[in-house]
Amino acid sequence: MIKLGEEAIENIAIGAALLGTGGGGDPHLGKLMALQAVRKYGPVTMLDPLEIDDDMLVVPSAMMGAPSVLVEKIPNGNEFKRCFNAISRYLGKTVGATMPIEAGGINSMIPLAVAAQMGLPIIDADGMGRAFPELQMVTYHLDGITASPMVVTDEKGNMEVLETISNKWAEDLARVATITMGGSVIVNIYPMTGKQVKTSAISNILSYSEKIGAIIKKSMQTGCNPIDELLDLTKGYLLFKGKINDVLRETRAGFNFGKAVMQGVEEYKGAAFELEFQNENLIGRKDGAVMASVPDLICCVDLESSIPITTEALKYGRRVAVLGLPCDRKWRTPKGIETVGPRYFRYDIDYVPIEDRMKGVVTK
Amino acid sequence: MIKLGEEAIENIAIGAALLGTGGGGDPHLGKLMALQAVRKYGPVTMLDPLEIDDDMLVVPSAMMGAPSVLVEKIPNGNEFKRCFNAISRYLGKTVGATMPIEAGGINSMIPLAVAAQMGLPIIDADGMGRAFPELQMVTYHLDGITASPMVVTDEKGNMEVLETISNKWAEDLARVATITMGGSVIVNIYPMTGKQVKTSAISNILSYSEKIGAIIKKSMQTGCNPIDELLDLTKGYLLFKGKINDVLRETRAGFNFGKAVMQGVEEYKGAAFELEFQNENLIGRKDGAVMASVPDLICCVDLESSIPITTEALKYGRRVAVLGLPCDRKWRTPKGIETVGPRYFRYDIDYVPIEDRMKGVVTK
Repeated sequence: MIKLGEEAIENIAIGAALLGTGGGGDPHLGKLMALQAVRKYGPVTMLDPLEIDDDMLVVPSAMMGAPSVLVEKIPNGNEFKRCFNAISRYLGKTVGATMPIEAGGINSMIPLAVAAQMGLPIIDADGMGRAFPELQMVTYHLDGITASPMVVTDEKGNMEVLETISNKWAEDLARVATITMGGSVIVNIYPMTGKQVKTSAISNILSYSEKIGAIIKKSMQTGCNPIDELLDLTKGYLLFKGKINDVLRETRAGFNFGKAVMQGVEEYKGAAFELEFQNENLIGRKDGAVMASVPDLICCVDLESSIPITTEALKYGRRVAVLGLPCDRKWRTPKGIETVGPRYFRYDIDYVPIEDRMKGVVTK
Repeated sequence: MIKLGEEAIENIAIGAALLGTGGGGDPHLGKLMALQAVRKYGPVTMLDPLEIDDDMLVVPSAMMGAPSVLVEKIPNGNEFKRCFNAISRYLGKTVGATMPIEAGGINSMIPLAVAAQMGLPIIDADGMGRAFPELQMVTYHLDGITASPMVVTDEKGNMEVLETISNKWAEDLARVATITMGGSVIVNIYPMTGKQVKTSAISNILSYSEKIGAIIKKSMQTGCNPIDELLDLTKGYLLFKGKINDVLRETRAGFNFGKAVMQGVEEYKGAAFELEFQNENLIGRKDGAVMASVPDLICCVDLESSIPITTEALKYGRRVAVLGLPCDRKWRTPKGIETVGPRYFRYDIDYVPIEDRMKGVVTK
């Protein structure tokens, strides 16, 4: 059991924004929400999955929708209580803890704000080990845990409890509700037992985010470049350094789609890099050759400050370093690749683990 | 208290199809569902609103969506129990009775099937006194009763409990769920107390439907034309007799939109009639002059058999009589006209009661 105060939350916000691979929502807004809650209600208790009872009801909380919308459509703070009351009443059981479903600027922070406000502990685990755009893209789904009963609510006070025959149906029905409610909502999803958390979640994602955040924050104070230290910790690779030349964006079907084009700087001078995203970064190509793809993590950081950059913040002239990090091994199973591999996102390429791509085994 | 058996249900099906003004779903399918339920579970107890306790929980049941879809996407029968269990669990109260929200082929019959299957009484009342395409178009809405908590379920087993800040939000969220679930669903909506039924519902719609149906059925046996008797009972008017020349249809946003064009026969020879609909008939024009508009009832019946014709069954060559019936007085209040008058449906005309139009007060 660890108590998370303001400093820990600042670090988690930075680290989770990196693991959010460009998505997961605005880190600044998420951090403000979590900090405000912790200042008002006190530090949050974080439990390791191994510390919880097998029959505890754990209810992950999250924001769903297009992150670009959330920036201007801020939760009013009543959503959390409304959601938890509804799921508790619907299941006839008291909620024992919350948990993130993904790592990212908003979705690592919302469960912290929820935990503080509701007086609940947060579990040091998530269902992605990164961020993904659709809600069946969690390890829970791979293990047959159902997304529903799921609660969707908006800042106006509308609410839906969904009970669906599959997680894809939960995604489809929650997505149209999200769009109708204005593009971003607060959800409770994948309610599960403590035992399911232990076997199915990706453990220690919050403490991992905190370590990443601490490295970046230290570098801001010392002025030392943290990239090498980050790559050591994450077993990642530097894919590119460049200046953004062009960004194409489209908000469609409740998602932010787009592509950023960069021209190389420093040792990458003369090369070009293309990054495509759907809320999160999906695929990176250097001079046309695939360097990394989902489910591996493609993360942009500011070239000077090493602060993680979300896809909304990609803009002309910005200088960035692109990092490639291996995903959790659960995503490298056949069902994992079927659920979140490049073909799911309509790219006509096979998934190749980033370590293999970096060995030169595959260059295209 | 009256027991409704097979004969009563046959008559209600015919009469409600007339009051359904072209919408409310296929009368044949609805009748089969209700008859099957009554044969299996026995006659249904029908209660007059005055007979029920003020604190009884009454939960109307209905089909929502495009009637043309329902014809090929038949409920599997489990929807009713699932819906009622969900609303009962959500409200923490036992359901005392069900009720139709509208008169129409499907939506008068579904509550009868529900009542038989669930062993519940049905209240002899509805919220429209006819059929309308959107779910805030009920007298309950005029009286401030909320549509939610509302349950939406499909034949596959997906379900949503909606709790919304307004009835328009319930309509919008349930509508996108309906479309996503395939175009037609079963709903529980406007749960209310016995006292609210007494003050807000339109009483005796089922017994009124039964009387209309009995007139039409008798005429089928005797061969006598029932139109005059129908107009006497309903205080209605014969608007036109014609042969359908053209039908335009479009299924859009979960509704059946369209227009039928007729050329006059018998005493209407030489004249033309245009009928526009959105699930239900909305406006009728003879030689360009408005003869009747929502919320008054515009009903097509087969010219030979006087069987009511739904908008799906309008087709080239069919010979029809068009009747105009005055709506319930609740629709003639300012809020009633705002909710279901011609301007709500984007027609640039004022509502004029059909009696006034027939007096020649307004000819265009």
